Amino acid sequence: MEEELYVVGKRVPRTDSIYKVTGAAEYTADIKLPNMLIAKVLRSPYPHAKIVNIDISKAKRVPGVKAVITGKDGYGVKWGVFKYTQDHMMLPIDKVRYVGEDIAACAAIDEETAQEAIELIKVDYEPLEPVFDPEEAMKDGAPLIHEGYPRNINIHVHIEVGDVDKAFKEAHYVREDKFRAQGEAYAMLEPYACVAYYKNGYLDLWMPNAGPHVRAKALSNLLKIPLNRIRVRHVFIGGAFGGRSEVAPADFIVSLLSIKTERPVKLVMSREENAISSRQVHDVVARIKTGVKKDGTIVARDYEVIYDGGAYSSTGPIAASVPFYVYEECYRMANVRYHGYRVYTNKGIRGMYGCHGRAFLAGCEAQLDLIAKELGLDPIEIRLKNGLRAGEETATGSKIISCGLQETIEEATKKVDFKNKWKKATRLKGVGMGCVAIMCGFPMGFRSGSSCSVKFNDDGQATIITAIVDNGQGNESMAIQIASEVLGIPMEDINIINADTEATSLDPGAYSQAATFVGANAVKRACEDARRQIAEIAREKLSCEIKDIVIKERMVFSRKNPENKIPISWIVREAFLRGKPIIGVGSYFPNIDLKREWVSKPFGQMAGSFSYGTSVAELTVDENTGKIKVHKFIAAHDCGRPINPMAVEGQLEGGIMQAGIAAIMEGNIWHNGFLMNPDLLEYKIPTAKDMPDIETVLVTTMDPEGPFGAKEGGLTIRMSAYSAIASAFYNATGRLFKELPLTPDKVLELLQTEEG
Amino acid sequence: MEEELYVVGKRVPRTDSIYKVTGAAEYTADIKLPNMLIAKVLRSPYPHAKIVNIDISKAKRVPGVKAVITGKDGYGVKWGVFKYTQDHMMLPIDKVRYVGEDIAACAAIDEETAQEAIELIKVDYEPLEPVFDPEEAMKDGAPLIHEGYPRNINIHVHIEVGDVDKAFKEAHYVREDKFRAQGEAYAMLEPYACVAYYKNGYLDLWMPNAGPHVRAKALSNLLKIPLNRIRVRHVFIGGAFGGRSEVAPADFIVSLLSIKTERPVKLVMSREENAISSRQVHDVVARIKTGVKKDGTIVARDYEVIYDGGAYSSTGPIAASVPFYVYEECYRMANVRYHGYRVYTNKGIRGMYGCHGRAFLAGCEAQLDLIAKELGLDPIEIRLKNGLRAGEETATGSKIISCGLQETIEEATKKVDFKNKWKKATRLKGVGMGCVAIMCGFPMGFRSGSSCSVKFNDDGQATIITAIVDNGQGNESMAIQIASEVLGIPMEDINIINADTEATSLDPGAYSQAATFVGANAVKRACEDARRQIAEIAREKLSCEIKDIVIKERMVFSRKNPENKIPISWIVREAFLRGKPIIGVGSYFPNIDLKREWVSKPFGQMAGSFSYGTSVAELTVDENTGKIKVHKFIAAHDCGRPINPMAVEGQLEGGIMQAGIAAIMEGNIWHNGFLMNPDLLEYKIPTAKDMPDIETVLVTTMDPEGPFGAKEGGLTIRMSAYSAIASAFYNATGRLFKELPLTPDKVLELLQTEEG
Repeated sequence: MEEELYVVGKRVPRTDSIYKVTGAAEYTADIKLPNMLIAKVLRSPYPHAKIVNIDISKAKRVPGVKAVITGKDGYGVKWGVFKYTQDHMMLPIDKVRYVGEDIAACAAIDEETAQEAIELIKVDYEPLEPVFDPEEAMKDGAPLIHEGYPRNINIHVHIEVGDVDKAFKEAHYVREDKFRAQGEAYAMLEPYACVAYYKNGYLDLWMPNAGPHVRAKALSNLLKIPLNRIRVRHVFIGGAFGGRSEVAPADFIVSLLSIKTERPVKLVMSREENAISSRQVHDVVARIKTGVKKDGTIVARDYEVIYDGGAYSSTGPIAASVPFYVYEECYRMANVRYHGYRVYTNKGIRGMYGCHGRAFLAGCEAQLDLIAKELGLDPIEIRLKNGLRAGEETATGSKIISCGLQETIEEATKKVDFKNKWKKATRLKGVGMGCVAIMCGFPMGFRSGSSCSVKFNDDGQATIITAIVDNGQGNESMAIQIASEVLGIPMEDINIINADTEATSLDPGAYSQAATFVGANAVKRACEDARRQIAEIAREKLSCEIKDIVIKERMVFSRKNPENKIPISWIVREAFLRGKPIIGVGSYFPNIDLKREWVSKPFGQMAGSFSYGTSVAELTVDENTGKIKVHKFIAAHDCGRPINPMAVEGQLEGGIMQAGIAAIMEGNIWHNGFLMNPDLLEYKIPTAKDMPDIETVLVTTMDPEGPFGAKEGGLTIRMSAYSAIASAFYNATGRLFKELPLTPDKVLELLQTEEG
Repeated sequence: MEEELYVVGKRVPRTDSIYKVTGAAEYTADIKLPNMLIAKVLRSPYPHAKIVNIDISKAKRVPGVKAVITGKDGYGVKWGVFKYTQDHMMLPIDKVRYVGEDIAACAAIDEETAQEAIELIKVDYEPLEPVFDPEEAMKDGAPLIHEGYPRNINIHVHIEVGDVDKAFKEAHYVREDKFRAQGEAYAMLEPYACVAYYKNGYLDLWMPNAGPHVRAKALSNLLKIPLNRIRVRHVFIGGAFGGRSEVAPADFIVSLLSIKTERPVKLVMSREENAISSRQVHDVVARIKTGVKKDGTIVARDYEVIYDGGAYSSTGPIAASVPFYVYEECYRMANVRYHGYRVYTNKGIRGMYGCHGRAFLAGCEAQLDLIAKELGLDPIEIRLKNGLRAGEETATGSKIISCGLQETIEEATKKVDFKNKWKKATRLKGVGMGCVAIMCGFPMGFRSGSSCSVKFNDDGQATIITAIVDNGQGNESMAIQIASEVLGIPMEDINIINADTEATSLDPGAYSQAATFVGANAVKRACEDARRQIAEIAREKLSCEIKDIVIKERMVFSRKNPENKIPISWIVREAFLRGKPIIGVGSYFPNIDLKREWVSKPFGQMAGSFSYGTSVAELTVDENTGKIKVHKFIAAHDCGRPINPMAVEGQLEGGIMQAGIAAIMEGNIWHNGFLMNPDLLEYKIPTAKDMPDIETVLVTTMDPEGPFGAKEGGLTIRMSAYSAIASAFYNATGRLFKELPLTPDKVLELLQTEEG
């Protein structure tokens, strides 16, 4: 099959698009169930306060109110992704830790009644001193947010390779800078919502989420319900970007309300609620020290990165280290020291993000340009010199099995005549670039692998059953496209049952970039298993060898006698008659080191493979207004072999918008623990008019492990787009940024400083 | 595993019972979907009439009416189970053929509006001469109901084995009788209902049905929608008894209304509608001629059976022959001739029934008693002499692989001291018996087999995915019980996804008694496949041999060292870590002759195995009122090894009620094509107060093919209960019945006739 592909690699409309553009797609908020109750949550007005008393008596008396709950109705379980991060009681009993934290909730016959009841709940607080800045929070004497976490350090990741101090001593040139990035909103178009229906001892759930199996397991623990009595169902999802990977307090609250009432309960957050009480993006402070040889070889690196974790652990260990990993997967690092601190503050909980760690990555890359200039090199040269290649290992011990980094650098820069433009940068007009790698899947214990099964119906159409999740990336469509290629039937002949925890086996979910590399590999193997069964019967009927069997456009034939075709439906029925229906099963587990642990042992194979990307931006800076205008953006991405180039391009364009343009626009604004821009009126996200001219380049490396040579599609651009902006800003102004986003006020301030 | 069973064979509460007794079970009529429309159907008031014109203009103008359809909105496809029985346009265009036939339908915002619209549809009919009696319908010159079916003969099955005429000539004694049975209602507690929701090109359906895959395929043909765009879902079902095996006009109508409106549409029939326009039970006329040797060996048989098929073919070929088959599977028949005619009449469509063919079976058995008496034998002796045994073949060529007929006869009769009571029958008090066999599954082409898959979640609980259908028999529970035995985890750890056509592979459905023998065999094999995978890992960990592995109560251990236990959840997680999650797949196809055809080639292996049953009844006849009182009923059943004896007993008790007591109570009453007793006020079904003292005996034969030795559970009693009543009536009165049911009027009439 390798020699000719019929479907994979083709530009095909995504199977989900039609529903989204016609409005037919149903999101969680659209779900209506008979007798459904509406939930509302009472949220903390204090960033840090002791809960003295909660009086729900008045709320309970409101006609139409069916249940009112507080932390006392929970089961005393604290949530955490890892055992050592269990710090989050979904309805707190002792104290509140951020403005917007869930305190109490009710379920009523309609929204107005629920709102009325919520307003009648009386909470007595004893305000405590809050702390909002992570560097302040780390100081001795700062208010302690959680017991047992001195200096509010939630997670400390320490990685050290080589002899860093010695290397710095031997370096030709050393440079140290400090960068900051404001927190951001995920700004998913769909505010968070959850529907729960507890009936007959079973809990059914719908919510936008990246990993239904992970969600079900968490709720099983939190609600003390056996795992096979919880079913998280598939639903259309309006964006996740890393922020919907974990169980949310809303899930717990709505479930508990449904358990109490035995009626379906729905909670739909307002835009403001979504901003203050669902996940936020970490603020980051990065101290970056780099030492180089005269020829541009980087010999020493010392990093200290502080991540503002907000009130609870969330995916802390991952958040505290991933920015480093995606960088070490890109560049050779013989001597490197990394201290990553995730710190508690009295702000909303921070989660993973598709462009997480911005101050660190953009800081590293912009600093690299300055170093290159210092050495008389250009950004391309220094990156090509230090970039990893296939066959090499990362500093923490991951082997690179395919790598298109060099090609992405060359292709992306060629498109804008980068070398010349960089040299001739006129004042206030510049080009810049950023590179990064990203792991395709990472260790999640027994959740690292995926399985799929596929069955045929008697008309020769197939259904694949997989827990691949589609958060908007087109993962469903991708899985169907791969199945179509292997099974030789058109995409419209393939149905997918996905992500429903009852029907599917474990899968990492749309998390850790595993959907294509892990999930779709399982889909491919299941379909290959089914195809083998089909070929076995066809071989007999066609009197040919298995290797000559071709299945294409619903017909089976031998490539040696293509005139003699058998419909696949015929083969499928024959299999039924033989008592061995065509049912394929396939599993894939990536080649990762399962002993690798985020904090205690950050060494070993991190992922089955890594994808690469280079972002290039061209921009001008208005010295009067401080406004940056991005004119052109090139995204060159090595995603192995793209399954659906059109879908990958869509991901790249989304990344440019969410990271590249956000880098000059988006940022959370806080005042005394209150988020000042919680809605889309105050929080500006890029729209079509802000978008630059975009060119995308898909560098095809055939990954030896990925399905049809594919790796994850798109995240490297989301991760490197900030860097391209920071780099171009340096090229245009001679200044390194100090804090992202590069909004006009910050730009004007920087223009007052000295160059370099 | 054979030496000790932990779950199979135990009396366990059925998994579905709790939902049914608490009212938590949701049936189709309970389904509420947002924006759901209600459908009503206009029905023919004529038994036979040409449709001249249908005017729907006024109906369409009623505010709230969203769609009005007639036959012209269909796609011109005629339905039939077999190609040669395609005679049924679900909304007729040319003419109506029975009172109650679907003519037009509408969907409106509520029931009242729908009803108003229906009443405004104006149909111009041209009445045609009807024919109601099947024997009349077969006469030359009778009104023709369908073109191309001379003498209204829908199906004619002719089976002939040996030399019948010669054998009669050589017989010692020959007896010929004619028997009748009135049609009956299925009287399911749940009137027919259907919900359809056509959205985004997909049609979702819920209705009580015996075979979702069969239903989906039929609707795919009728609606010209690809099979993978139709999903028939699992729903609780309030009884089927054979009458819900086939696509119903309601399914087509509700689907069409949903396609037109793109909204969910629900149709719930009233009790009366259900009676007149869903399936009915065939009226039967049987001419039975039997020749015996002096010693009681039956040497010649000549049968002519006429089945009143009503207006359309339905499962005609099966209905026209099954009564003969269940009898030839029970008794040796060296020389036999069978003519089965299914005849069209202008009455409601007739379908299969769990006690189908009553006049024939009860006639044969009652006549046998008379013959025995004639020869100086008793009913036990003549049955033991002529009954088949394991290893023998039926007249049409089916090998019997297990047979407990003799034991059921002996055990059932022993319970009431039958021999003595028979001999000493005082006038108007008698005992009687009836025997029958039944095939476990029968040829349905590629739908004869079943497949199942099973997967584990990370806590060690399992989900089985199977198309086994539960119509009320407890098939779900049975499948879970078998899975529990094989997997070594309690029943509450096992979830079942069943009958949903999207998730499951083909299965015969709850039809042809295939659920245990075929469907559960596939479940067992899938679980064995999963168990093998578990045992393989356990063997390593326990350093023992596969054959010594025991899985019990969620623990895995070696029988040689039972102290050293590993939780199954541990093994399951280990499998995930190894990248080979425990997913088992299993299929079963019964050993049947697929070349066997109902009409054209009624020879060959009919089923994988046959179950056996003997019913014994003890009754008195009140000579003044004609009322029969059944005092005692013994049901002895060979179902191989009963999986859940309690569930099988429930089936036997249900059979005694539905067939044994119905034999003296239930019958459809017609007048000029109108059913005069369409509801439960006029149509009496037995209640607790009508029930006799019941004893059940489960004769355990270990079937070599059935799962854990099991065969179908219960149908032989439903099939033989009428015979026991007919036999006991003969014993009590000396008269053979002439027509069933033996209601007081008929009894009084018979008592006026001569004995014998």
